[in-house]
Formats: sequence, C-alpha cells, structure tokens
Amino acid sequence: MSAPVRFCFDFSSPYAYLAAMQIERLAFRHGRTVEWRPILLGAIFKITGMRPGPDMPMRGDYMRQDASRFARLVGLPFRWPTVFPISGVAPSRAVYWVEAHAPEKTGALCRALLSGFFADDVDPSSDAGILRAARAVGLKGTEVLAGTQDPVVKERLKAEVDAAIAAGVFGSPFTIVDGEGFWGADRLPQVELWLEGKGR
Amino acid sequence: MSAPVRFCFDFSSPYAYLAAMQIERLAFRHGRTVEWRPILLGAIFKITGMRPGPDMPMRGDYMRQDASRFARLVGLPFRWPTVFPISGVAPSRAVYWVEAHAPEKTGALCRALLSGFFADDVDPSSDAGILRAARAVGLKGTEVLAGTQDPVVKERLKAEVDAAIAAGVFGSPFTIVDGEGFWGADRLPQVELWLEGKGR
Repeated sequence: MSAPVRFCFDFSSPYAYLAAMQIERLAFRHGRTVEWRPILLGAIFKITGMRPGPDMPMRGDYMRQDASRFARLVGLPFRWPTVFPISGVAPSRAVYWVEAHAPEKTGALCRALLSGFFADDVDPSSDAGILRAARAVGLKGTEVLAGTQDPVVKERLKAEVDAAIAAGVFGSPFTIVDGEGFWGADRLPQVELWLEGKGR
Repeated sequence: MSAPVRFCFDFSSPYAYLAAMQIERLAFRHGRTVEWRPILLGAIFKITGMRPGPDMPMRGDYMRQDASRFARLVGLPFRWPTVFPISGVAPSRAVYWVEAHAPEKTGALCRALLSGFFADDVDPSSDAGILRAARAVGLKGTEVLAGTQDPVVKERLKAEVDAAIAAGVFGSPFTIVDGEGFWGADRLPQVELWLEGKGR
C-alpha cells in the first residue's frame, strides 16, 4: 500500500471545500487513502507575510467571483458565507477528535463541515455547525462537540500546524503526495498526473 | 468573429511562460485570437499589497519547485533563470512596438522572449535578449530595439498597466475572456471550459 495523500486545509478556504469534495475519489483511484489535516493559516501567514486572499484589494473581488465560477465548472453547489472568515479552531479540533475516536468518519466530517459552510451557509465554528455536521455523518453531535475541549486534541491541532509549516504548507488547500506539495484546488489534475507517475 | 482573448502577463512570471506557450492554440480552437498584453506587476503589487511570489518565505521555495514540475507535466523545457527577477519594461515595450509595426509577429515575439528567459536563460530585458528574440521570429533586431525608445510605445505600456488595473488584473498570467478574468497558468483548462460555454 502506498503512503496516504495528505490534504492540508483551513476551514475558511473556499478552495479547500472545492478540493475536499474531490480528493478522496481521486486518491482512491490510485490506491491511496487521504490524511485529513485541518490547519490554521493565520499562524502561517505571520511567517510568509501573506494575507487572506479575500482581504486583498482586487484579489478579494476576484476570489469571490472565481470560487463561485469554479464550483459551477465542477458541478458543486456554492454560496459565499454570510459570516466570513471564521476561526478554524473548533472544527479542526472536532476533526482530530473524530480521527482518534471514529477514524472512518474523518473525511465525511470534513466534507460535511466544509459543504455546510460553503453550500448551506452554516458556520462550522459554531456549536450548531459542529452538531449538524457530526450528526449528518452518523456521529453523536454532543460527543464531538465535547471532544473539541479535549486537551489531547488541542495539542494535536497545534502540532499539526507546526508540522504543516515544517512541510512547507503556506496556503489552502495544500496536497502532499510522497513529499511533493501541490497548492490549490486547481492543481488536482496535476496531483492526479503525479499519482500516475508523470512529471517525476 | 468573437472578441479576442486578452492575455495579460509580466515578463518575470514563469507561469506566464507556461501559459503563453499554450494560449494561442487554445484560443484558436474556439475561433478566437489573442491580444498579448505585457504589463508591469510591480505597479499593481503596490495597490494589492502583494509581493512577488519568489520573494515570499515558503512560497518562493514552492514556486521554484512547482514551476519546474509544471513544465515537465505539460512537456515544456524549463530552467530557473540565473538573473531573476528582471524589469519587464524593455521587453514589454518591444512587444507593443511590434504590435504596431508587424502585428502578426506579436505572439511569436512574446513566446520567444519568454522561452528565451525560462528555457534558455537569456535575460529578455537585455539588448542581447531583445535582439535574439526579434531575429528568431524574423524581425530586424535593431529596429525592435530602437522601438523600445519610441515615446508612443512608452506611453502605450503605461496605458496598458492602467487598463489592466482597471480590469482587475492583480497577477500573472491573467487571461480575460469576454470580461471574465482567470488568474494563473493552471486555470487554462477552465478558460477552455468557459470558451465552450460552460459555467456561465
């Protein structure tokens, strides 16, 4: 079995949503599983000097238009959230708690949180958003919500942000295949070529 | 005849090279021509607060690796230039002079300047680089070089930078189809889908 594909993302990234809905099928086609790695880009932006795209003059307007068009082109529902950006702390912790306690649900939970945010306008950092996503994938919502306060999970998220920085992750989504990083939802076709052994 | 595809780019952009080698065939497949619009991103970065990707911590390392891999995946030669970045002023002026005096050579000149830079390590801002590219496409090199000092061409470049800003161009390459902007070489597949009438 080849190594998993590592999918690093921030919950405030519309492009993470667009890629998250495709990455598992893409990996499975090549005999790979996916390691879901929610991270907090805010900490990383301090190192790179980048700012969130939506905050930038010109680029912010582009992103709003582009993310919506991207969704139409790949056939996914999309609406820009009413509350944006949000802190990724709570939903990221929920993901790591689920990975530890019901690992087979991890990908489904990530997709439910992201699609809740970018298709249904439900804030994934809110208690209601976490409860809704957890229940949608067959988990006990109150257990998942309580899990976000688990000290082990809190430390895990910090460690994953550090690991992402060490691996060169500076944007979202950032997909790592056998040590090779690919930034952006629009790079999934190149991730697929790489998995096919091309470009090496 | 449908409106031309407008291809805005900065000569210091490796992704401009990767897209420039493909954009004309892509446009032609859909009955479109290409308007080649070299611009100066430095002026635009002052508005957006962005910095050149290669200068950024983490992102710079990624770009060097990514541009090379991108070239391998699309089958183009590539090497990171010895002198980088360069000022796009002289080669951009050369392009606008040629557009005014031998318009059918405009695209070929852009490709010769960009591939000279990113495949053959020839600085396109140098006199030698401009002479080489002009001659490669069948133009009189000394005429093109002299053209870069033409006051009309100098004003034209300034006007094109202003027009690009007005059109929302904040990165390179930036392809505009019927008013719809697409940022990045990795968006050419989406440009093609758009030209096919999808996603509208």
